[in-house]
Amino acid sequence: MGFSVTILGSNSALPSNGRHPTSQVLSVKDHLVLIDCGEGTQIQLAKYEIKVHKIEYIFISHLHGDHFFGLIGLITSYNLNQRQKPLTVFGPKGLQEIVYLQLHYSATQLRYELNFEEVVPENGKVILSNDHFEVTTVQLNHRIPCVGYIFKEKNLDRKIIKEALNQYKIPVEVIPSLKKGSDLTMPDGTIVPNNILTGNPLRERSYAFCTDTSYLESIVPYIKGVDLLYHEATFTSDLQERANETFHSTAKEAATIAAKAAVAKLIVGHFSGRYRELDMLLKEAKSQFSNTELALEGACFEVMI
Amino acid sequence: MGFSVTILGSNSALPSNGRHPTSQVLSVKDHLVLIDCGEGTQIQLAKYEIKVHKIEYIFISHLHGDHFFGLIGLITSYNLNQRQKPLTVFGPKGLQEIVYLQLHYSATQLRYELNFEEVVPENGKVILSNDHFEVTTVQLNHRIPCVGYIFKEKNLDRKIIKEALNQYKIPVEVIPSLKKGSDLTMPDGTIVPNNILTGNPLRERSYAFCTDTSYLESIVPYIKGVDLLYHEATFTSDLQERANETFHSTAKEAATIAAKAAVAKLIVGHFSGRYRELDMLLKEAKSQFSNTELALEGACFEVMI
Repeated sequence: MGFSVTILGSNSALPSNGRHPTSQVLSVKDHLVLIDCGEGTQIQLAKYEIKVHKIEYIFISHLHGDHFFGLIGLITSYNLNQRQKPLTVFGPKGLQEIVYLQLHYSATQLRYELNFEEVVPENGKVILSNDHFEVTTVQLNHRIPCVGYIFKEKNLDRKIIKEALNQYKIPVEVIPSLKKGSDLTMPDGTIVPNNILTGNPLRERSYAFCTDTSYLESIVPYIKGVDLLYHEATFTSDLQERANETFHSTAKEAATIAAKAAVAKLIVGHFSGRYRELDMLLKEAKSQFSNTELALEGACFEVMI
Repeated sequence: MGFSVTILGSNSALPSNGRHPTSQVLSVKDHLVLIDCGEGTQIQLAKYEIKVHKIEYIFISHLHGDHFFGLIGLITSYNLNQRQKPLTVFGPKGLQEIVYLQLHYSATQLRYELNFEEVVPENGKVILSNDHFEVTTVQLNHRIPCVGYIFKEKNLDRKIIKEALNQYKIPVEVIPSLKKGSDLTMPDGTIVPNNILTGNPLRERSYAFCTDTSYLESIVPYIKGVDLLYHEATFTSDLQERANETFHSTAKEAATIAAKAAVAKLIVGHFSGRYRELDMLLKEAKSQFSNTELALEGACFEVMI
């Protein structure tokens, strides 16, 4: 089953150069998670044909508008489109108050269950663990409280050994329980241990989302070895001073973090509107960490094993 | 000088079929006014190359999201783009609270003066009168408090009589004062009365913006004879019951109002997402009021005299 990230927007501050503010979709075994939700995210979700009703969780990094102004529109559009499935939003203090105030003045009664989980920026705290993945926070360093999120697969199925299928004449209906680790009971009552029938599952894949932040080595132990790291790279290094003032990172800094954390792949985004072309940002990042790509809108990054 | 309306969005409820929620720009003598501001308005303003920094006033009809979710993004983008000119927002109770709460949590200090004027839905109240136009409210009938706005030119210049230019050797620098009605003092001290030098100004043009509302004849006296009427036409008449339930109008009803008010031209908009094609709505409206056009995105309706 897939583990992929689709970029819906990766511009910083405001829409410009035809680029949209931050939002992306993580797909884990066909379970969808929305990460950040800048203005126009619902339009981008439609453009890239994301199955919006499959989104179960939304994670918001911080309360600068380019990361959440699209949330209220998505929440109310779900209501107009008869959503019934619960939706849980993780984000910093204030988000629930902002959403509820707007629902109040529009006299909107939600038809579905909307839950908010307030997230405090801290390192290594597990804030969600369901049947399919686990989410851990990291504390970023920005002008207002800001959280990074690490997503990791869990409970992967054990792999059925093909030869065992014939040898033990395994009925198709028991395969799901074998994948979960059960032993097999034969018609004569004999028990066949699971480890004869299945092999170890594939490795759990992981994704770290880190924006907005200045260069911050304290996150390295928490994102160590992830398969995919999204790290903001608002500026090129010639604007290091501007990056420091605004608590953002340069492409070089993003790539340095990726190298120190020995991640498998880096995606850089949150591009300043001053860059019409993004080649310089990519080139700079690649000079420090070669397996880097730009978070271009519509790009889908699949983590293969 | 021009008097025109440019449509940025005219879909109802949520973005669909590639159409955006309600927003439009009124240009009066090169002074720009934004009317409603659905999600993505700042992107639409850029797309249609509107000079956003010329916008001095914003008028919001009501607090359903498809009419104002783009406001906070526009306000904060102005700040990021170093706006210095004051901005005044007219809208129902709650709008200021919603905007301020979001500025608070994003720790945003505005660099420009942002004023809110709370508007109560009532008929015939003048809420703004400046050197160039006057704005009057009408009370609409929707599920939450909703205001229609009528914009009318004022203080139009008197027209210089060409023959007088030569006859009295009028210096170019006194022409602006003559247009405002001043008499001319000749070098020998003789006074030439203004009515010998100028003719009456052109007629003041007017525009009425009425959305969202059910069919409402009480607005007719207030919008009587306007040059241009934007009236919502969410549904076709076969969905009259749905229109009644949701406090919206059909295309036929919009056109009936236009006919009763004897307006010069009708634009219909606020199209339900169920209509991929809009021909039926136009046809239905034209059957009652022939000078009707669809409020298509990017269309500019200029009122000529």
